[in-house]
Amino acid sequence: MDDSILALMVKAAEKSAQIIRKDFCQSKNYQYKTSHIDIVTKTDFDSQSCIHNYLISGMKDLGINEEEIGFIEEENGKNFIKKHNFIVDPLDGTTNFTSGIPICCISIGYSLNQEIKIGVALNPFSNTLYWGIKGRGSFVKDKLFGKRHLQLLAKPTKSWIVSGHLNGLDVFLDQFKIYQNIYPHVRGFRNIGSLVLDLCLTAENVLDVVLNKGCSVWDIAAAGLILSESGGQLYNDLGQGLQIDLVDTKKKYYLYACHPDLKEEVLSFLSLDLEV
Amino acid sequence: MDDSILALMVKAAEKSAQIIRKDFCQSKNYQYKTSHIDIVTKTDFDSQSCIHNYLISGMKDLGINEEEIGFIEEENGKNFIKKHNFIVDPLDGTTNFTSGIPICCISIGYSLNQEIKIGVALNPFSNTLYWGIKGRGSFVKDKLFGKRHLQLLAKPTKSWIVSGHLNGLDVFLDQFKIYQNIYPHVRGFRNIGSLVLDLCLTAENVLDVVLNKGCSVWDIAAAGLILSESGGQLYNDLGQGLQIDLVDTKKKYYLYACHPDLKEEVLSFLSLDLEV
Repeated sequence: MDDSILALMVKAAEKSAQIIRKDFCQSKNYQYKTSHIDIVTKTDFDSQSCIHNYLISGMKDLGINEEEIGFIEEENGKNFIKKHNFIVDPLDGTTNFTSGIPICCISIGYSLNQEIKIGVALNPFSNTLYWGIKGRGSFVKDKLFGKRHLQLLAKPTKSWIVSGHLNGLDVFLDQFKIYQNIYPHVRGFRNIGSLVLDLCLTAENVLDVVLNKGCSVWDIAAAGLILSESGGQLYNDLGQGLQIDLVDTKKKYYLYACHPDLKEEVLSFLSLDLEV
Repeated sequence: MDDSILALMVKAAEKSAQIIRKDFCQSKNYQYKTSHIDIVTKTDFDSQSCIHNYLISGMKDLGINEEEIGFIEEENGKNFIKKHNFIVDPLDGTTNFTSGIPICCISIGYSLNQEIKIGVALNPFSNTLYWGIKGRGSFVKDKLFGKRHLQLLAKPTKSWIVSGHLNGLDVFLDQFKIYQNIYPHVRGFRNIGSLVLDLCLTAENVLDVVLNKGCSVWDIAAAGLILSESGGQLYNDLGQGLQIDLVDTKKKYYLYACHPDLKEEVLSFLSLDLEV
């Protein structure tokens, strides 16, 4: 059953990718959500509807009763927990998309009885597809190198590339402080504008550490599984394994993600009292 | 003559792009230059040789004496000023390249009697080509939208995307301070790892402000012309138009770049004494 559901999720993401590519740079219209740094476009909603409808229809074809299928969707105030749940970010990186930066990700997680079982993430511009299945590993497929099994490496500190995504007006000073702590010790610091992609690129050994202070369940449900199945781990700011809550979908997560062997060193940089 | 030299420069960049694509993710070998954040690979040198040899040969075919052709190249201690000069960054974004992030740029500027006349920049992964000719405008060509004339817009502050590239251990604290000043006022902050691409994306109205503290002539010769021909401007940290020095190639530039209408506001964020 897992493989059939994975196939459905991949197909849903590919359909959504068509919408995102078609709309790219065609309209600069957007609406504000919570502030001037938090925007949404018609494309987010179109992508979300496309995924929703495709998954409902596909699950019914697999013999699953519609009443047992729930959705947790970024652009939808009403989220329902059912036996089968899909956790959807239809366009992670809306600011990039709206600005004309072709870096974003479609993210679809699947949970059975509130345990996340499958994660799919697709970059619609590069067509790089990431997926993970609980207990069976994670994978990437792209045009350049085909399909590969993802296996996280623990690299030395001075070759780390750190992703520091800024999360908003209430936390940015703390975030910059942490970035200052870590920057002199590592090779590079990037902010590419999609947390889903950051986590997938970490699973791919491209980035090494992801620092975040204010993401949501739809940002991490799929990519978190992809990363953990590659050998990585998501932690909260106390260094405990991050617990994803599928019921309280308004919850904001403070997280860092890396290879477990890097955990203690990364944690040492998170203090706001460190003197640089 | 300008058009013939432009065609040579584009062809040289395309040949170098083949090398970069072929080598991508094939080798993780690199050497340190000045510190653990400053690296170079065999691909940088191969790209540079390819461009050098192609341009020498092509210029001679155009009837120009080899003794009148000089090069200012990133990976070469010996730089010579001649009547015709090429200013080459063979792989801007070496850290991205080495880490597996497919974001980098080949940059080739051309100067006649020390005045920069032509700039060419090519992203080898997206195949997006940018070029500018002094007094004749700047252009972009990509697979999605074909060729367009670049014309810079002055957008409102709260929709700016700011590029903050970190330049090293001697300036990063000042850089983070400036980023903290500007971040709450704008839509987004990005560090994608290639200054050449940052400047070109600004000319393309994708990014709006570029902040840098420590770049070199090969980073800005070509892309600076592309941006200024689109209507933008490069300033030093005092707000004066940036003067590029082709003789002292070790000079480091503190610059910001944007639409001229944004200049005063950007300058107001550069103070290190601002209270956030």
